[in-house]
Amino acid sequence: MASCSADLAPLMGPNATAAASYICDRLSDTSYAVDTTYLLFSAYLVFSMQLGFAMLCAGSVRAKNTMNIMLTNVLDAAAGGLFYYLFGFAFAFGSPSNGFIGHHFFGLKKVPSAAIDYSNFLYQWAFAIAAAGITSGSIAERTQFVAYLIYSAFLTGFVYPVVSHWFWSTDGWASAFNSDDLLFGSGVIDFAGSGVVHMVGGIAGFWGALIEGPRIGRFDHSGRSVALRGHSASLVVLGTFLLWFGWYGFNPGSFNKILVAYGSGSYYGQWSAVGRTAVTTTLAGCTAALTTLFGKRLLSGHWNVTDVCNGLLGGFAAITAGCSVVEPWAAIICGFVAALVLISCNKIAEKVRYDDPLEAAQLHGGCGAWGVIFTALFADKEYVAQIYGADRPYGLFMGGGGKLLAAHVIQILVIIGWVSATMGPLFFVLHKLKLLRISAEDEMAGMDLTRHGGFAYVYHDDDESPKNGIQLRKVEPSSTAPRV
Amino acid sequence: MASCSADLAPLMGPNATAAASYICDRLSDTSYAVDTTYLLFSAYLVFSMQLGFAMLCAGSVRAKNTMNIMLTNVLDAAAGGLFYYLFGFAFAFGSPSNGFIGHHFFGLKKVPSAAIDYSNFLYQWAFAIAAAGITSGSIAERTQFVAYLIYSAFLTGFVYPVVSHWFWSTDGWASAFNSDDLLFGSGVIDFAGSGVVHMVGGIAGFWGALIEGPRIGRFDHSGRSVALRGHSASLVVLGTFLLWFGWYGFNPGSFNKILVAYGSGSYYGQWSAVGRTAVTTTLAGCTAALTTLFGKRLLSGHWNVTDVCNGLLGGFAAITAGCSVVEPWAAIICGFVAALVLISCNKIAEKVRYDDPLEAAQLHGGCGAWGVIFTALFADKEYVAQIYGADRPYGLFMGGGGKLLAAHVIQILVIIGWVSATMGPLFFVLHKLKLLRISAEDEMAGMDLTRHGGFAYVYHDDDESPKNGIQLRKVEPSSTAPRV
Amino acid sequence: MASCSADLAPLMGPNATAAASYICDRLSDTSYAVDTTYLLFSAYLVFSMQLGFAMLCAGSVRAKNTMNIMLTNVLDAAAGGLFYYLFGFAFAFGSPSNGFIGHHFFGLKKVPSAAIDYSNFLYQWAFAIAAAGITSGSIAERTQFVAYLIYSAFLTGFVYPVVSHWFWSTDGWASAFNSDDLLFGSGVIDFAGSGVVHMVGGIAGFWGALIEGPRIGRFDHSGRSVALRGHSASLVVLGTFLLWFGWYGFNPGSFNKILVAYGSGSYYGQWSAVGRTAVTTTLAGCTAALTTLFGKRLLSGHWNVTDVCNGLLGGFAAITAGCSVVEPWAAIICGFVAALVLISCNKIAEKVRYDDPLEAAQLHGGCGAWGVIFTALFADKEYVAQIYGADRPYGLFMGGGGKLLAAHVIQILVIIGWVSATMGPLFFVLHKLKLLRISAEDEMAGMDLTRHGGFAYVYHDDDESPKNGIQLRKVEPSSTAPRV
Repeated sequence: MASCSADLAPLMGPNATAAASYICDRLSDTSYAVDTTYLLFSAYLVFSMQLGFAMLCAGSVRAKNTMNIMLTNVLDAAAGGLFYYLFGFAFAFGSPSNGFIGHHFFGLKKVPSAAIDYSNFLYQWAFAIAAAGITSGSIAERTQFVAYLIYSAFLTGFVYPVVSHWFWSTDGWASAFNSDDLLFGSGVIDFAGSGVVHMVGGIAGFWGALIEGPRIGRFDHSGRSVALRGHSASLVVLGTFLLWFGWYGFNPGSFNKILVAYGSGSYYGQWSAVGRTAVTTTLAGCTAALTTLFGKRLLSGHWNVTDVCNGLLGGFAAITAGCSVVEPWAAIICGFVAALVLISCNKIAEKVRYDDPLEAAQLHGGCGAWGVIFTALFADKEYVAQIYGADRPYGLFMGGGGKLLAAHVIQILVIIGWVSATMGPLFFVLHKLKLLRISAEDEMAGMDLTRHGGFAYVYHDDDESPKNGIQLRKVEPSSTAPRV
Repeated sequence: MASCSADLAPLMGPNATAAASYICDRLSDTSYAVDTTYLLFSAYLVFSMQLGFAMLCAGSVRAKNTMNIMLTNVLDAAAGGLFYYLFGFAFAFGSPSNGFIGHHFFGLKKVPSAAIDYSNFLYQWAFAIAAAGITSGSIAERTQFVAYLIYSAFLTGFVYPVVSHWFWSTDGWASAFNSDDLLFGSGVIDFAGSGVVHMVGGIAGFWGALIEGPRIGRFDHSGRSVALRGHSASLVVLGTFLLWFGWYGFNPGSFNKILVAYGSGSYYGQWSAVGRTAVTTTLAGCTAALTTLFGKRLLSGHWNVTDVCNGLLGGFAAITAGCSVVEPWAAIICGFVAALVLISCNKIAEKVRYDDPLEAAQLHGGCGAWGVIFTALFADKEYVAQIYGADRPYGLFMGGGGKLLAAHVIQILVIIGWVSATMGPLFFVLHKLKLLRISAEDEMAGMDLTRHGGFAYVYHDDDESPKNGIQLRKVEPSSTAPRV
Repeated sequence: MASCSADLAPLMGPNATAAASYICDRLSDTSYAVDTTYLLFSAYLVFSMQLGFAMLCAGSVRAKNTMNIMLTNVLDAAAGGLFYYLFGFAFAFGSPSNGFIGHHFFGLKKVPSAAIDYSNFLYQWAFAIAAAGITSGSIAERTQFVAYLIYSAFLTGFVYPVVSHWFWSTDGWASAFNSDDLLFGSGVIDFAGSGVVHMVGGIAGFWGALIEGPRIGRFDHSGRSVALRGHSASLVVLGTFLLWFGWYGFNPGSFNKILVAYGSGSYYGQWSAVGRTAVTTTLAGCTAALTTLFGKRLLSGHWNVTDVCNGLLGGFAAITAGCSVVEPWAAIICGFVAALVLISCNKIAEKVRYDDPLEAAQLHGGCGAWGVIFTALFADKEYVAQIYGADRPYGLFMGGGGKLLAAHVIQILVIIGWVSATMGPLFFVLHKLKLLRISAEDEMAGMDLTRHGGFAYVYHDDDESPKNGIQLRKVEPSSTAPRV
């Protein structure tokens, strides 16, 4: 805290330099402790979203594929931990670097430093695994496990880190934190990642689901849409609430620090902006949920809880980019439009026979893109100045001109381009190598029985009868007998 | 932190006013950051109780009504977010105001200020939606969805905020924070809301459930009680533990600030009181759970996990009023009696043919009322002085006289009166308009099938056969075909 | 903060003693608030592990015993709260005391003090109930409820507190915090309890499960192992993720304080060590999960999600001892070996016909013991110095000699000895008194029906038919009729 001593010492008089230094050091220690506490607990909340994804995904697929989808969610976190430690974090935030990709901090070498601490790594890891989690939803119920292992590693370890480098690293070519050269004098304001996380996960999922094609039975012979209902609405609601809970780490946590004064000695500082971000996040989700409730009631004739859950999540995905720089009333607009975007994307998906069991491409891709645009329209002058620096372009509708919008259109285009250029070919090659989609027989029987050792649920003894395809109460392979 | 500069500047000498001001400003920034971190994470914990309610309610109803009850829980949070933002928070905490209702801060106008920050709003919102969640339990499995939408908005947006204004606002006529005029020289010490939240939710539920009448089959032809078992004990336990987890935000979090010295430089300060509050909360719940375990074993002959869960929650509801001002040993008494109160209330409910699927009126109303009385009996002199101010009346059994008890009896009476006078007529009018209860046919079939698009669970393919009332694997309405 | 004033006052000059004292007092208040916030929220996370255990256990047993196992988990927390308040905490941390057992702070008498606050009690209570939770998994599906009540009280109230006194109290004979006399000049570095918590729970479970013998049907007539599959993989994954979430309170939280400078004014302090601990924890679990995934794929031929979950937890149990004193790369080694240890222990258990429904003895006992050894091999010199004091022995493989390893071998031996000498005879006496194991008829029917009032799940109305053994939609005992 050099500036503290430099400021305080002259005020305390010529003989008090050591005293000023002592006081400033103690204040500095306190800041580190407070900010790390804030960041670590935010990271834990973001991590809880992985549990939310697992439960949401599990509830949204048929019972016969429950273990498969949950295993992918556990592995997103586990494999993501290793890959992100080994190189993902280095690609994303290794500094100093070029604008495209980082190349320091492999295996957390030279961490901690004055700029990067272990808590930053943990927080960013929790973000990285969220992207892979989104994608696994799009291709659920029909993807080979080995394909999953390959794309997940590639996405978490390379594709996503590069995008986060562009927009969030101090070296990124489009980052609003870039001190050398700001894109359109602005850089992209994607505060917590409507584009960086949600669009990346959604577009990757889109290519996977498109190349695989729909699940068997999802569209009937005449091409009409047939609902393949998830097996547990309770798990869907559980997952949705956990994601809501975790989003309070995702959005307000993206400040990284809470002990930042915007003018020391005032009641208004970053702590207040953090609270406001939690409020905008809440209001966007709430509005999207209500809009979906009434919208789907008009369209389908019933009050549907899973649709409301998806609408809620769409509102969150949309507000994620602008959560810190918009007023609460603007968040209501954000959520309202996000619900309409999701309903529209789902209509389009149905028309073009696109099957995404979790609506992940529509929700994270579509609402995420809306969130990027929304931020460029409604970002508040004062809030942008406090968080990103004075005299920056701000929202078009707030009188801030079109530069931010230009930067955000660029962001959408390059994310679509980059993810399509990397994940598209990957899925296509896997498809050509017959590694992407499971056989029709396996799909009908369910992946849990054919690949994961059994059905996820055994509620009654008669569930263990052969009607489930195999004899579940089977003899385990003993260590001396030949393997089955 | 005017007082800091005023205190420190003279100590530092005539030339050091600026230095004192600099140091005090930095300390003030730190305080805001620490307290906001504390309050926001407490708010997130309280929010997780909404998930707890959803799972508890889901597990406690029959499978055929699972989606219905979960949808109401999601909407409590979502609609509550909008209503509380637009006017609920203003009614509750808008200041300056009269003693009955607040009238500032609509749509968070003039927030943040020195007194109110966004984090305060978020925390209070999480409380407001808890009240509505309690009520939805009482009227589960037989209430029209539109009735739910109406009463929920009215409760969260008006009835509850007014009560919280009375007892918690600095302007409230019965608030212990009122600086002008304290009821009986004391005001009501309902620290985290045994009365303000739990009794309000419970009494509202009581009127709803009473006017609707019992579920079909709940009492047989000769009037004997028939258990309509919830469909999943796992969800009940999940919900109970989540509520326990969240209660650590509800009770200790109600201090709002943790960085408050009761005498600067001591190891004992508000941080210690916060910890004590977590301990009293824990002990009350634990004791109530054990009392229920053995009590119900004697009464019913078996060890019942759902009864233990309800007993635990009854202990929490009871300690909520006094958690911050009683000794740990007193919390054990609180929990013990709370369990007996709940068992007794359930016995009475059965005798008078009152049907409350979640025991919500008994648990939150009955144990909540006991908690209000308990506080008036056991509040500790020293703790009351530290938290509410010196020379206040305290617990009758602790030698503090009867003034606090008088105030608390008033609290119970006015809460019963106010909620009965507002929610009672509302439910009655809905009843007369045939908007309250669903038809007997719908009740037998279950609301999920008739109103929410299907059954919540599909474990086996043969679950999708027509025996569930409708063909679930139905063709979805396409956008060009006529709507179903 | 005497040292602050002593340090600062001379720096500020002769007339500024009062000013120095004022500033130091304010800094001290801040420290207490920050550290208590950190410790309390860590305690809440550790508490959430109890929910994790409940869900993991529930999902791992057959549906017919779900309510039984969940009730034990609720009661671990509830009874544990009372016992630990009354005497457990006193046995563990009552100070000053002898090296074997503490004898102050019964019923939290003389708490808070300068050394112990309520938050310390809450944190340690959450640890104590974890040990009992581990044990209940080993003896699941065949143990009388009354036996559970007895051993749980004994373990939480006496056996575990004594062990934690030895290794964690400032008076403990083998504690690295003992200021008088360090075992081998080192004391045991079991930072968050691979030995103190996990081995204790696991070994207690081992004796229980061994004395009871395997569940009926677990090994067929020729002695071959037959899988008795748990009833819900979703609950297993839910529980595992919750345990992962809570482990961030368990391991990093064990610092108790986050605002500790290792050299004031540096970016590197205890906050950084806390973050590093979260990272080592994450990496050990992730590595163990991946190792198990591929290892079990080779052994069994399928990708098994519950095995991956157990592997993950084994990695966590192992890293718990050394999480704060090893480098992230070493955590990867820890997790890798932990997975192999668990697979091996399971193989051995199968060979010797040992039946542990949760693999709790193997996982917490086996991997916990490996974690104790691992720490003695890989503890980093610098980290040990920062956390435990300068010039201490450190890891053998890091050049620190064999003293730490000697101490840790002693730890393993005395934990095995103590737990075997206390819990072994207890289980044996219960066995001889016919209080330990339920009857074969009850075991076949399931404990939920015979002891807990019914089956845990009712998904369809026809589930309520007599085929489940008893008529579930039964008439409740009215208060006037004779009890059933």
